[in-house]
Amino acid sequence: MKTRAAVAFEAKRPLEIVEVDLEGPRAGEVLIEIKATGICHTDAYTLDGLDSEGVFPSILGHEGAGVVVEVGPGVTSVEVGDHVIPLYTPECRQCKSCLSRKTNLCTAIRGTQGKGVMPDGTSRFSYKGQAIAHYMGCSTFSNYTVLPEIAVAKIRKDAPFDKACYVGCGVTTGVGAVVNTAKVEPGANCVVFGLGGIGLNVIQGLKMVGADMIVGVDINGDKEEWGRRFGMTHFVNPKEVSDVVAHLVQLTDGGADYTFDCTGNTVVMRQALEACHRGWGESVVIGVAESGKEIATRPFQLVTGRVWRGSAFGGARGRTDTPKIVDWYMDGKIEIDPMITHTFALDDINKAFDLMHEGKSIRSVVVF
Amino acid sequence: MKTRAAVAFEAKRPLEIVEVDLEGPRAGEVLIEIKATGICHTDAYTLDGLDSEGVFPSILGHEGAGVVVEVGPGVTSVEVGDHVIPLYTPECRQCKSCLSRKTNLCTAIRGTQGKGVMPDGTSRFSYKGQAIAHYMGCSTFSNYTVLPEIAVAKIRKDAPFDKACYVGCGVTTGVGAVVNTAKVEPGANCVVFGLGGIGLNVIQGLKMVGADMIVGVDINGDKEEWGRRFGMTHFVNPKEVSDVVAHLVQLTDGGADYTFDCTGNTVVMRQALEACHRGWGESVVIGVAESGKEIATRPFQLVTGRVWRGSAFGGARGRTDTPKIVDWYMDGKIEIDPMITHTFALDDINKAFDLMHEGKSIRSVVVF
Repeated sequence: MKTRAAVAFEAKRPLEIVEVDLEGPRAGEVLIEIKATGICHTDAYTLDGLDSEGVFPSILGHEGAGVVVEVGPGVTSVEVGDHVIPLYTPECRQCKSCLSRKTNLCTAIRGTQGKGVMPDGTSRFSYKGQAIAHYMGCSTFSNYTVLPEIAVAKIRKDAPFDKACYVGCGVTTGVGAVVNTAKVEPGANCVVFGLGGIGLNVIQGLKMVGADMIVGVDINGDKEEWGRRFGMTHFVNPKEVSDVVAHLVQLTDGGADYTFDCTGNTVVMRQALEACHRGWGESVVIGVAESGKEIATRPFQLVTGRVWRGSAFGGARGRTDTPKIVDWYMDGKIEIDPMITHTFALDDINKAFDLMHEGKSIRSVVVF
Repeated sequence: MKTRAAVAFEAKRPLEIVEVDLEGPRAGEVLIEIKATGICHTDAYTLDGLDSEGVFPSILGHEGAGVVVEVGPGVTSVEVGDHVIPLYTPECRQCKSCLSRKTNLCTAIRGTQGKGVMPDGTSRFSYKGQAIAHYMGCSTFSNYTVLPEIAVAKIRKDAPFDKACYVGCGVTTGVGAVVNTAKVEPGANCVVFGLGGIGLNVIQGLKMVGADMIVGVDINGDKEEWGRRFGMTHFVNPKEVSDVVAHLVQLTDGGADYTFDCTGNTVVMRQALEACHRGWGESVVIGVAESGKEIATRPFQLVTGRVWRGSAFGGARGRTDTPKIVDWYMDGKIEIDPMITHTFALDDINKAFDLMHEGKSIRSVVVF
């Protein structure tokens, strides 16, 4: 079949909207009509050529929602007509990782996914006879895409696609880091570094689980209003205090119970750890750092009880937990609508990248 | 009263065995006759002048066992005749830390303890009219010493003092790191870096809780026999493999579930983290690093599921957990006797320091 898609022919060049060829689903695969997709910093990171493992040409996009239109042989967990979210972190429920009960990082198809191909080692996309790579196993910047069954989360049918798509990455990453990774308890004092989309979703996750203090930290004072909109109780601009760690430790009466880095800046990651309470404070790294950058601290920080951990896709098991987060949205426990600041047609997708680079959007969504 | 004690008059000089004056216990304090004390690297660290906060003159020693001989006004939790272990990590059960249920690092008397005085700000020891500082709130290199009631763990009376004293630091630090900090589950694959006294106690803790693989790592091949003696299943000498992290990841089929640094070397601490299994491996820093040294890694290690934490006094609540570890020893669940490689009279305590510096002892104990 043919489908319209935004193709990244090479790094550092705008996407081109063209008709590409798409093979139907093979065994264990499903064909999905993408109804909406968010544009995430990770897409830009790859398009800007910063990902040393980026493959071109490819169809980017990993934050989508859509409808199953065809299933390949042997598919049993979804059927035609199901509403689904593509998962860049699949959940096979069979591998050592899935069976460990300790991680969401399913390893069933990690190798092929990283190479931009389906689990059988081939691509379903092509353009003028040349193969085009899949991206993060999703390629949601295409009106139709093919995914392995284990990388598809079935969600309720009354969830709007142009909001549910954000659960495919940003919402789950932020809310999940609170719920699944840190397991924040009611009454906790928490600090969130970086009030972009992820930070705001951490904040609303903290509000949902009943945290007491929700301190937002950002060098951009304009973010304060956004933070408060989603439950932030205190705002700190590091530019306005002499020592941000000492300031936060004092503000939180000895340090935070939980801190979250949503900046990707390794200096901030250290501050987030050291702003934790002696004895039990836990810091969660969510942001993705520049390649080659390292985090550091004195081991004394750990020996006196602080814990340093990280979170990928919010610690959420794709097929099990993602539909729950959609439910939380539909039940009003979390918000998505006000975070979707811009909506575009596929033809205007490059405008969304421009907005993001300019820091002018929380989340832009392409609606097909 | 008078008591014989080994006094550290200044750094980098041998201890002097003299008769010092000891005031009796004030309100909330107890007088203890020390029957035996271990000599730990931390005592040597202070005596060697490496601890920038070391106070002199002082009476070192923090790993003792003895008998309560007098109690001050208001003392209710112990009585004359009780067998006890002095605690450098007290347990007041009233402070924010104790009430958090998340840490053993009681903060009730942290300020005064660090300054070498009792909670009322004064010392009980003096020599020729000059005050002598307490050390880590214990000063077990004295035949008699005074401690706050909250820093005294009551233990069973049939436990031999010359073995029980080791529970006051080394045994609890190692076994507790497994049981309280890492909470290792049966079947886990674990790696222990550094097979000194702490490392051996980690190993026997792992054996006790039913770990599967217990891999010991040490640059000294002579340690292999010691490790196997306490339950180590595999030995790796980093000098004999090209890449110790890669070797351990392969040996443990993807990385360890838990690793423990018992070296104090920050390079090793990084190896210990990176030898953890993707998705869930946890690394516990136990060793105390040289002042100024920092640990570092790529944040990707955390984002992909590894956890970095630390342990002080094995995460054990002093009065609650230490007596249990004595019970485990008496019940044969853990061993102490073979680790006590040397016993001295107080007059020969400097010989114990020499042995330790030469790496020739696991644990030396002074018996009064």
